[in-house]
Amino acid sequence: MRTQVGIIGAGPSGLVLSHLLYLHGIDSVILESRSQAYVEARMRAGVLDSDVTALFKAVGVGERMMKEGLPQEQMEIRFEGKRRYINWKELAGGRVNMVYGQQEVVKDFIQRRQQDGGKLFFEAQALRITDLDGRPTIEYMHEGQQKKLECEIVAACDGYHGIGRRTIPADKLEAYELNYSFAWLGIVAEARPSSKWLVTSAHERGYAMHSMRSPSISRNYLQIPLTDTVDDWSDERIWQELQTRLETDADWKLEEGAILEKTRFDIRSFVCHTMRYKKMFLAGDSAHMVPPTGGRGLNQAIADVCILADGLADYFKKSSSAHLERYTDLCLQRVWHAQQFTWRMTSVLQRLDWENKNPYHRQVQIAQLEYLTSNRAAATSLAECYAGMPLQTSFLPSDRPQYPLVI
Amino acid sequence: MRTQVGIIGAGPSGLVLSHLLYLHGIDSVILESRSQAYVEARMRAGVLDSDVTALFKAVGVGERMMKEGLPQEQMEIRFEGKRRYINWKELAGGRVNMVYGQQEVVKDFIQRRQQDGGKLFFEAQALRITDLDGRPTIEYMHEGQQKKLECEIVAACDGYHGIGRRTIPADKLEAYELNYSFAWLGIVAEARPSSKWLVTSAHERGYAMHSMRSPSISRNYLQIPLTDTVDDWSDERIWQELQTRLETDADWKLEEGAILEKTRFDIRSFVCHTMRYKKMFLAGDSAHMVPPTGGRGLNQAIADVCILADGLADYFKKSSSAHLERYTDLCLQRVWHAQQFTWRMTSVLQRLDWENKNPYHRQVQIAQLEYLTSNRAAATSLAECYAGMPLQTSFLPSDRPQYPLVI
Repeated sequence: MRTQVGIIGAGPSGLVLSHLLYLHGIDSVILESRSQAYVEARMRAGVLDSDVTALFKAVGVGERMMKEGLPQEQMEIRFEGKRRYINWKELAGGRVNMVYGQQEVVKDFIQRRQQDGGKLFFEAQALRITDLDGRPTIEYMHEGQQKKLECEIVAACDGYHGIGRRTIPADKLEAYELNYSFAWLGIVAEARPSSKWLVTSAHERGYAMHSMRSPSISRNYLQIPLTDTVDDWSDERIWQELQTRLETDADWKLEEGAILEKTRFDIRSFVCHTMRYKKMFLAGDSAHMVPPTGGRGLNQAIADVCILADGLADYFKKSSSAHLERYTDLCLQRVWHAQQFTWRMTSVLQRLDWENKNPYHRQVQIAQLEYLTSNRAAATSLAECYAGMPLQTSFLPSDRPQYPLVI
Repeated sequence: MRTQVGIIGAGPSGLVLSHLLYLHGIDSVILESRSQAYVEARMRAGVLDSDVTALFKAVGVGERMMKEGLPQEQMEIRFEGKRRYINWKELAGGRVNMVYGQQEVVKDFIQRRQQDGGKLFFEAQALRITDLDGRPTIEYMHEGQQKKLECEIVAACDGYHGIGRRTIPADKLEAYELNYSFAWLGIVAEARPSSKWLVTSAHERGYAMHSMRSPSISRNYLQIPLTDTVDDWSDERIWQELQTRLETDADWKLEEGAILEKTRFDIRSFVCHTMRYKKMFLAGDSAHMVPPTGGRGLNQAIADVCILADGLADYFKKSSSAHLERYTDLCLQRVWHAQQFTWRMTSVLQRLDWENKNPYHRQVQIAQLEYLTSNRAAATSLAECYAGMPLQTSFLPSDRPQYPLVI
């Protein structure tokens, strides 16, 4: 099989890239190791920047999102019995984020790619990437047979554990990584969301978050010790801990319901500076990861593929490599911005001193939260970062209002 | 000897408190363990908030400061070859900080107190504070004799190592402390300042700062390993390290000159929540300390004694304890604000990962600096914090413009 762009991974970055390339008139093939049912059910991120929702509308894949997505004008931060609001609509130039689960984005783009005759192969496990100097080839296993996809460019949208980045020789790979001393427990429950907006709590016992996936499904998170497993968290213990950390009281109560899913996941900050290796480009989680605290992961992945799609359009249609040459630099600027914002929110909202508790750190954390949620300049900065940087893409008008404001 | 307020320590907080009490018509006595010459030469902080300079003018001790002080409209932040400016005059409501050495403030207030017949005893070592429940007494050693100062209120303005805080029983003392894995080397040189404003550098080798004490004296700082002593730093090595970290190049050169003083000091974050114990009040460094990164130490001390002076005025002249009862709460709000700001600047400007270097942290630091010095909201927040919170004092008009802006 042959194509112009061989894409590994049918997560949001691979799917959106494939669709944007299609609109540019460029042929691509997606190889995804999991089944279609699996990727359409895989819950991960859930909040889209306003520019990402604008993009999805502009490229014709926003209809269901606009009907079923839950717009968010603000978020709530709780600490020490205080309830504070960061209204990003008001503080960040009228922008509104959208709660719309990653799995819904995946469903929409798969459906659209399939309608457009897109070539998506599920349960197609990429094994090896060869000839990146010449005619790149992805060797993969599909329906019990080893096959080859020949392409001109490889897009590795295959996540942190994928083979894309691992294909790069160690001495060519520049990467930065931070692992944390705690993990997260993600909980999906059949329970009406208890708030219209995202509620985040910097509790002394650890971070907790309450958000929603739909009007009848809530999504909750707990910061947990690194050594904990899912088995350590009975449904009863989960609800008790959520009620405590989210500070249920007379004015607000967390709705409980049947727990549909509980997943423990590691928290990691990771940036690969080598986002291009010969004729392969990394996008999304294969190149960078953040803890979920700032809602940046999915939005960063979309930002990558916007830049990549335009670069590939120039490459294939104008025989110009100029834009592609800038791919890494353009992405990394945004990536490090997201890293520093996430680092700030992680250190402000979570207990980073989980094992070695010095009460000084907790007091500074409370003082930071007090300041961030009461000072206009600081809250504006926070709201702007949550609302996200503008996407760099030819699919949105270049004369739309640009936030954030620079000095 | 008897007085209304017995003040231990003739640093800025003790001296300013004594003068404000005098203006309120309240009698005080200052006991200082060091000689007058020593305290008048002791170099510490050097940048005054605009509200502090306004206070000094308002209470008649600002004349020499207005002549000799060096107003600062901005600061410069250098990193990775970049030179960025935070213009606090522009970003923080027209406020201008003033470079005026702490020792000059001390000289001015000593002179003024002595002109007004104030009772200041130097080389008077406080030994013990007794009867804090009844008629408080400070026992001290002066001119080879043990003496007693009887007072109604004790103000412990005697610094981190003073006897004030140490008089409080351990089980009544609530305090928070963080020690750092590095120290600072402070260098005073007979060299014309190389810049009109404070230059701070977040160099990979560690933090460096260049500032000034007068048009012919410069003041420099280096972050150094905790294990280093002054002997490890020859004059030659100091200049070489300063030139490197401050990024001397064709456009800017650090002027060198005879080194007049080099001092190694420990960096500490400390907050004592017990700022009042019976009839004793703690102010300034005896109650809280910050690393010098944010220029908060001296300004916080002045903020404390402003609140204390007004509280004592109500206590002695209106027999009302209401204001004094709020002393701790009013101070701690400001103190924790300064702590969180200093923590942020320390983590952004200095190498906190001094021993255990993970290159991820350095990259996040660079990304934070990039963001703070280019985003308007973030730079405004930083400028407002450097310019300081408004003083709470009856000596300044209550209808003056109030910064920062709140949500």
